[in-house]
Amino acid sequence: MAVRTRLSVEARREQLIALGEELFAARPFDEVSIDEIAARAKISNGLLYHYFGSKRDFYVEVVRAAVQGLRAVTAIPDSVPEPERSVRSLDAYLAYVEAHAPGYLQLMGSGGGADPEVAGIVDALREEFAARILEGLRRTGLEWAAGDAPPLLRGAVRGWVGMVEHASLDWVAHRDVPRAALAELLQAVLVSTVQAALTADAPARD
Amino acid sequence: MAVRTRLSVEARREQLIALGEELFAARPFDEVSIDEIAARAKISNGLLYHYFGSKRDFYVEVVRAAVQGLRAVTAIPDSVPEPERSVRSLDAYLAYVEAHAPGYLQLMGSGGGADPEVAGIVDALREEFAARILEGLRRTGLEWAAGDAPPLLRGAVRGWVGMVEHASLDWVAHRDVPRAALAELLQAVLVSTVQAALTADAPARD
Repeated sequence: MAVRTRLSVEARREQLIALGEELFAARPFDEVSIDEIAARAKISNGLLYHYFGSKRDFYVEVVRAAVQGLRAVTAIPDSVPEPERSVRSLDAYLAYVEAHAPGYLQLMGSGGGADPEVAGIVDALREEFAARILEGLRRTGLEWAAGDAPPLLRGAVRGWVGMVEHASLDWVAHRDVPRAALAELLQAVLVSTVQAALTADAPARD
Repeated sequence: MAVRTRLSVEARREQLIALGEELFAARPFDEVSIDEIAARAKISNGLLYHYFGSKRDFYVEVVRAAVQGLRAVTAIPDSVPEPERSVRSLDAYLAYVEAHAPGYLQLMGSGGGADPEVAGIVDALREEFAARILEGLRRTGLEWAAGDAPPLLRGAVRGWVGMVEHASLDWVAHRDVPRAALAELLQAVLVSTVQAALTADAPARD
């Protein structure tokens, strides 16, 4: 009985978070009211507060779920060799952006970042993307296996993650470039970014 | 007399905005109080409200002034030939970031973007950076002189502007890369980004 109740609570939370993704994708945080969320979910405001504490807490959970979705689809198994792994990860990222364009624009674009905790969740994802790329490079035999990546390479890869994000925002705002063309361009830029960073780093490590 | 009074108001506003840049660079918006601003400026809270309406309006003016400063230092005259013009602009950007690191982190990093109007001001600057680069390319004789840049090139350049921003955030957070090395890397990535975008666009326009 206890298990069954807990599952039901989990299911209800998931249902509410899915509804939140829909509502917060369509409009900014300030324009979505607790009344509307509760009415759409056919529950009382009180029950919504019971599950999530506050509208802000609810929003943070919605963002966390969306970011977790993006993290999951872009996590390509280590068994896939580079560069195919990073190509597939980038393509999954852009596919997710395309499928969730309004929510992506709200979260990453001008309307987003209205909350330091939300900004921190998004930042952690960016850092994870950069770490995955560096890990992929490390496994191809680059030499910093024992420690951190060279600083310039770390910054360059972190910058490239920002490029993907901003190019994605431009892409979903204009919708005039095929996804494959954007993916190919960004992948080519990643390759040349890494090459440029390693070339520049090399003399300092001689 | 009227002129003198107006100048005095302008000078007072400028003084308050400079103080705001200092305070909002050190801590997030929510942690800076009107009381503190007024006390530091040695004026009454009422006079501060008289000048700026609200703490939020004051903050927006502070951001506007900071963004205007960044816009101004990166505006290299058209008379400077490419690629020197874009090299100098990028170097001026990074020099500004270095000189205003705490404020840059607050505005562009996790703590920033707490306000749609602020986000819009920052976005407009990004678009202007991208437009300047495209204009520089156009003047070097690229073929879209009569109209808009090809979509992939536009998106790629806008993405690169995001890369500069994110690499800058990583840079000021870690401070372990010389500015010249970062500038050189980012400039090399811009060149290869433009080349990749033009190569990919070319077949479609045959």
